[in-house]
Amino acid sequence: MSARKKLKFGALIHGVGGNISAWRHPEIPSDASVSLPFYVQAAQKAEEGLFDLVFIADGLYINEKSIPHFLNRFEPITILSALAAVTKKIGLVGTLSSSYSEPFTVARQFGSLDQISGGRAGWNVVTSPLEGSARNYGRTEHPTHDERYEIAEEYLAVTKGLWDSWEDDAFVRDKESGVFFDPSKLHKLNHKGKHFSVEGPLNVARSKQGQPVIFQAGSSESGKNLAAKEADAVFTGQENLQEAKAFYKDVKDRAVAFGRSRDDIAILPGIGPIIGRTQEEAERKYEEIASLVSIEKALDYLGRFFEHHDFSQYPLDEPFPDIGDLGSNSFRSGTDKIKKDAREQGLTLRQVALRAATPRGQFIGTPEQIADQLEQWHKEEAADGFIIHSTLPSGLNDFVELVVPLLQERGIYRTEYEADTLRGNLGVPIPANRYTLAKASVEV
Amino acid sequence: MSARKKLKFGALIHGVGGNISAWRHPEIPSDASVSLPFYVQAAQKAEEGLFDLVFIADGLYINEKSIPHFLNRFEPITILSALAAVTKKIGLVGTLSSSYSEPFTVARQFGSLDQISGGRAGWNVVTSPLEGSARNYGRTEHPTHDERYEIAEEYLAVTKGLWDSWEDDAFVRDKESGVFFDPSKLHKLNHKGKHFSVEGPLNVARSKQGQPVIFQAGSSESGKNLAAKEADAVFTGQENLQEAKAFYKDVKDRAVAFGRSRDDIAILPGIGPIIGRTQEEAERKYEEIASLVSIEKALDYLGRFFEHHDFSQYPLDEPFPDIGDLGSNSFRSGTDKIKKDAREQGLTLRQVALRAATPRGQFIGTPEQIADQLEQWHKEEAADGFIIHSTLPSGLNDFVELVVPLLQERGIYRTEYEADTLRGNLGVPIPANRYTLAKASVEV
Repeated sequence: MSARKKLKFGALIHGVGGNISAWRHPEIPSDASVSLPFYVQAAQKAEEGLFDLVFIADGLYINEKSIPHFLNRFEPITILSALAAVTKKIGLVGTLSSSYSEPFTVARQFGSLDQISGGRAGWNVVTSPLEGSARNYGRTEHPTHDERYEIAEEYLAVTKGLWDSWEDDAFVRDKESGVFFDPSKLHKLNHKGKHFSVEGPLNVARSKQGQPVIFQAGSSESGKNLAAKEADAVFTGQENLQEAKAFYKDVKDRAVAFGRSRDDIAILPGIGPIIGRTQEEAERKYEEIASLVSIEKALDYLGRFFEHHDFSQYPLDEPFPDIGDLGSNSFRSGTDKIKKDAREQGLTLRQVALRAATPRGQFIGTPEQIADQLEQWHKEEAADGFIIHSTLPSGLNDFVELVVPLLQERGIYRTEYEADTLRGNLGVPIPANRYTLAKASVEV
Repeated sequence: MSARKKLKFGALIHGVGGNISAWRHPEIPSDASVSLPFYVQAAQKAEEGLFDLVFIADGLYINEKSIPHFLNRFEPITILSALAAVTKKIGLVGTLSSSYSEPFTVARQFGSLDQISGGRAGWNVVTSPLEGSARNYGRTEHPTHDERYEIAEEYLAVTKGLWDSWEDDAFVRDKESGVFFDPSKLHKLNHKGKHFSVEGPLNVARSKQGQPVIFQAGSSESGKNLAAKEADAVFTGQENLQEAKAFYKDVKDRAVAFGRSRDDIAILPGIGPIIGRTQEEAERKYEEIASLVSIEKALDYLGRFFEHHDFSQYPLDEPFPDIGDLGSNSFRSGTDKIKKDAREQGLTLRQVALRAATPRGQFIGTPEQIADQLEQWHKEEAADGFIIHSTLPSGLNDFVELVVPLLQERGIYRTEYEADTLRGNLGVPIPANRYTLAKASVEV
């Protein structure tokens, strides 16, 4: 086992999100999801805390039951590009669906963001869990879970191929001789596959981190395999130490089976720490947030994970109803877990709904208690780092001001950025250009 | 005829472009096309000059003969979003193809840019002149010119419909009652047409300018009709006063025929002014740029407009060769004009190629001479304003510092921004939300 790298942190910025009624909290600007100053402030605070990255989630379908943050929010490519201009070192990672987009466009947009930010871009590849997305993109049906992952794998092969269109020393730019580039270092991809046919080359060169960092966030079997094979980092949702350790080992083992090193992929569980000067103060903060949600809204929210199923038809205080296979083609790993927890812990519908609406998480307490937990998860190989999704803006501030210094004192977190690229800070390798590599191996 | 509005200006920022060998000029950073500081500086200089907008062009296909600026450059959505964060008042307009994209995604990205910038976004709708684009998007063939315009028209209808998904007062955001929005003010589009089927609603609300400004840049019959029917502004390439006046009248007349006001659409020819303290100094500056181009590069460049036709096979100093219909499915208005000029003026291939490579334009001279010309074009209704594409960074600086004050003295250019939205400054109407409008007419 290699020496552990230091902890990595990402900040999920999600406007009025984090809880379906969080926007009612006095601290949250109720237009936060479309407020540039709100996003800039959060990103700059995360950069002050030497975080590796900010993370912008996304979705391609809403209806009148969607949570407030989803209804009207910034699209990831646009807000990340805006943040690139007002930050210096922090990584910029966003979700974009491989089920409803074109690889040439997506390769360009992330490639361009990578250039604009000087090598700080990351793409969280999702396959779109919501079936309604199909109807916004002229499709008669949403592809099945397995099809979506098959598409995603080919999609990534195309995108990574396009990103290598230009070798790193292709641009000569010699004003005297008039040679702008070396044509032998420009490469067409000529991809012809089952789902995509893309000639190339791409009209954006590689940045100084080589290619944007690939994130993967699904926890199904297909999701874990895609991550282990293709991703540089995994944003996962493990709730407790034992599950997190199992997931961590599972994905790292799979990466090794695909011929990669355990260090090539960073596992980053998402957590929503709530920090108080005392444990009681932290608990009060949680209650303050949770109490903003009505049971009606909580049932609506739960339904979202199950193809917008109407849960108001069931008795609230009886065991969670049998809803069959519902939800298996959407957020599969999430819905399986909800059903499993309900069954194993004998939860009522009301309990399931309120837990879903305001996840309490494991990380509630004093800065010392939070730091202890993070250290334990890191030490016991449950996580390489964490994506912090604080419900309240003050949660991120508290984390940066109160928890970060403790982690630095303990020597498990950086005191300055190691690099100015996302790969450099995350400690994942810069992929060599495939064509340069091929030439080198011929020369050998 | 209504009182003339004051002049409008846009700045085309194009990295090392403007001339195929301009990158060799000592003043141009040879990586300008992927340099954020270069773009920020140009945008801020244009904003200092109270320009209405910056303009970012685009293309979806390159090969080894493409001009240097096209090979490796920022994608418009990303660079405009970055510029949004470091400018305050100037509009942000970019090219995006309706032939190779999805209206839901494009409506979101421009809608999001419009929110990020506080109502300063504009979309230049192009149909992609380059046939090679099809091969980057898995298509067996590039749609014909007429088909592309048919698609564009339906595409715009979908996009404008999606932008109206939320009425302007849909978001109640009442923390006390817990009402985030009024569901009666959220609307599905339910578009089912020949080329697109899009349900909606969009997950981005309207900005304070209602909808992004629509630009159109084609000068063919289909292009002019699309502009007259749907666009707020036209970026055109008229070379002389008489042609510009004819084009101006033509498009405004067509707009009136579509039931619009002449003031609803701004006609903005693109010009590349070259400014010197004397006429001779300006001419020297032009020669300095033109002399950077070799005849081989000029022939390559000319070929680009004609489906990458190889012009090196013809004698250089004989009349422009007969190449039949070549080029009619690409930049039709441009290629027709090249052929017409060659025929009417009896130009040789060498002359045609060098003119194409370094367009000299009409606007070369002292600040006073340039101001006189701009005033005349404005007064004689050849233009509502201009898109300035200076080859050298100093060209934009000279325009802002030397020409702008003269226009202000003459009372034909603003001395401060009238508004903080692009529509407000351009003086084009904010479209009412179609659903609010429908309700109002029912109430009447």
